[in-house]
Amino acid sequence: MQTIKFPDKATWNTLLQRPVMDTTALEAKVEAILRDVQENGDQVVKKYAAEFDKVQLTDLEVKPEAFAAAEAALEPALKAAIRQAARNITTFHKAQQEKPQIIETMPGVQCWRKPVGIEKVGLYIPGGSAPLFSTILMLGIPATIAGCKEIVLCTPSLHPAILYTAQLVGISRVFTIGGVQAIGAMAYGTETVPRVYKIFGPGNQYVTCAKQLVNKRGVAIDMPAGPSEVAVLADESCVPAFVAADLLSQAEHGPDSQVVLVTTSEKVLADVEKALQAQLDKLPRKSIATAALDNSKMILVQDIDTAMEMLNTYAPEHLILACRNELNVADKVTNAGSVFLGNYTPESAGDYASGTNHTLPTNGYATAYSGVSLDSFVKKITFQQITPQGLQQIGPTIEAMAAAEGLDAHKNAVTVRLQSNN
Amino acid sequence: MQTIKFPDKATWNTLLQRPVMDTTALEAKVEAILRDVQENGDQVVKKYAAEFDKVQLTDLEVKPEAFAAAEAALEPALKAAIRQAARNITTFHKAQQEKPQIIETMPGVQCWRKPVGIEKVGLYIPGGSAPLFSTILMLGIPATIAGCKEIVLCTPSLHPAILYTAQLVGISRVFTIGGVQAIGAMAYGTETVPRVYKIFGPGNQYVTCAKQLVNKRGVAIDMPAGPSEVAVLADESCVPAFVAADLLSQAEHGPDSQVVLVTTSEKVLADVEKALQAQLDKLPRKSIATAALDNSKMILVQDIDTAMEMLNTYAPEHLILACRNELNVADKVTNAGSVFLGNYTPESAGDYASGTNHTLPTNGYATAYSGVSLDSFVKKITFQQITPQGLQQIGPTIEAMAAAEGLDAHKNAVTVRLQSNN
Repeated sequence: MQTIKFPDKATWNTLLQRPVMDTTALEAKVEAILRDVQENGDQVVKKYAAEFDKVQLTDLEVKPEAFAAAEAALEPALKAAIRQAARNITTFHKAQQEKPQIIETMPGVQCWRKPVGIEKVGLYIPGGSAPLFSTILMLGIPATIAGCKEIVLCTPSLHPAILYTAQLVGISRVFTIGGVQAIGAMAYGTETVPRVYKIFGPGNQYVTCAKQLVNKRGVAIDMPAGPSEVAVLADESCVPAFVAADLLSQAEHGPDSQVVLVTTSEKVLADVEKALQAQLDKLPRKSIATAALDNSKMILVQDIDTAMEMLNTYAPEHLILACRNELNVADKVTNAGSVFLGNYTPESAGDYASGTNHTLPTNGYATAYSGVSLDSFVKKITFQQITPQGLQQIGPTIEAMAAAEGLDAHKNAVTVRLQSNN
Repeated sequence: MQTIKFPDKATWNTLLQRPVMDTTALEAKVEAILRDVQENGDQVVKKYAAEFDKVQLTDLEVKPEAFAAAEAALEPALKAAIRQAARNITTFHKAQQEKPQIIETMPGVQCWRKPVGIEKVGLYIPGGSAPLFSTILMLGIPATIAGCKEIVLCTPSLHPAILYTAQLVGISRVFTIGGVQAIGAMAYGTETVPRVYKIFGPGNQYVTCAKQLVNKRGVAIDMPAGPSEVAVLADESCVPAFVAADLLSQAEHGPDSQVVLVTTSEKVLADVEKALQAQLDKLPRKSIATAALDNSKMILVQDIDTAMEMLNTYAPEHLILACRNELNVADKVTNAGSVFLGNYTPESAGDYASGTNHTLPTNGYATAYSGVSLDSFVKKITFQQITPQGLQQIGPTIEAMAAAEGLDAHKNAVTVRLQSNN
């Protein structure tokens, strides 16, 4: 990791710059696949699976018996862990449910809003070395709580943990489709795959580009994507070995992962560096983590306030506060996806099981975006009902404003009622 | 309006199709302006204002004395109406505030989320024939309640009602900039205009395209845009003159406005048609409304359930329920932006003053998107804190899942703590 001591505020933005991820170069290629799937459906989905994933698909949909087989194949301890995580995630996301509350804004004028689950949602889980069943918990559980009627999962990985988790959280249908063709199938529908209104989930740069393109044509997506990242704020009350472990748990995600340590202590800087080396040697994904650490920064600053100001500028996806008075420091966080307080709250707790969602804004998007929550799976529809007496109260206000905006028919919709109302 | 009686369900999608709004053809031109603004700032903002808006701008920012002059120039009745609307909108949006609630998902594992206002937001209000000061209420009020620190408004219209409303709701700074250059200035910042994290507000197809393009590069936007629309569900309990007035209040927005009537009564069909003709003749914006009505549909269906099923397929921005048992019918609404119940709740009430927001999903986006609300101006940051004892409880779950996903450093972040914990 690069070490920077007491950087001038004017240099912060440059210092904390992320690598630019520009998928424009892929657009033409991705667009062509999306169009092909839109026009030709299942047939070309299978063609692309053969071409890109080197698999011959006969059935796109996973059959019911596969789920029972997956459950039988999975070791009981892992199933118990998945169920425990599911319970915690359910508890936290259920608490986000909102009851409609009728607000009388003026006598006779009642307004309320009601969360209604998005009818059809699609989840994407990439294949690759690690089967990301934890992401099925993070997306499937709030989708079920929200009352989404059709929850579709596309994934090229049929690992037993994927199928077990999909069934546990109530996914309606699972399709063994990956890549751009999966996004196209869910965005436009095929003979087999239902069209959905919103698509969630991680993916490589092709999947990310496909999600951006279908979003431009009106299919909602969870949020813009970027490489995963963690920032740790540590003072001398931290445990350097814990901080090093947290930095490494982010660094092992990929060579483009972002890892930042901001500390007020020169000793912490040195001790974390030492602990990093000691732990790194034992990691199976050492080469990935090493590549990520090469791009990463350890920054020494004057005090905690400067550290928090710098971190709010960075707007990290994950922020660990390994410092004294962590609750007070947490109050100063304005830009972050999810925050981990104290020495015994590793980021991996939130990645898997504490209950919070792990689908979070990367790349500085925490300045404007929230992580996935129950809100991501509902529309909040507003309602209003006005009594004839209420319209007499509010009517002149509407008439005056509509007239001033030059919209006479808007005004007349009130006038015609007020005149009949006497 | 075209009249269709008892259409077959298989034809609904075609019948209710909206005109496709594709801004791809504009992209190169809009992109060039955005880049120019990003690179050259104020100087080219002024150049484009001269070129497109035919105005020579010396100062981009509106001076404090202009607000006092606007207030003095505006007639008291209009100011009172704006203040009344502001009160109702404030009441409704304040009720959307959420207090952090600490959830103990397991003993020693506490999770919560806290809404934090987006630090810098930008509002855009187009120029044109009508000064849309009502949209300043709809965007500025929730921004203020959310605690956004910098609320920037760009608009080419310096109508007194615009300036009065901007000051009333607490907009920080107003810039007299319009079009693509306004979106570019807010997205990237110039010498004078601060960069913002999220951009809100309506605009023509150039502005819409500019918002899409900056969104692709990480600036959040309120929602995708499309022509405004209303659907009315009416049975024989409706008042045809009211229904006609509501249809016209939508039709006057623009020739591309969408207007749909779905009714269970042949008599209502005929009576609304008659009332439309009578009212249309008196409208100043008659030619616009006539053009919009030409593309619009009156549909006769068998019963209310069929009507609601059709309307949920259409997913209208505004839905008026002019029918019996309107509260029961409202329970069946799954896809709509905002819903108006009964004969005395015209859409224009929600457009101006009932308290609900008028920035709503058009173009069928109500299947997946909500209208603007307090949520649109905050990030909900999640927090978690685990005690050493709590980590002993939850630790093995995290370890098992991380190991199964092949992420050993994630597992180790727990193990290193559990080992030191004894």
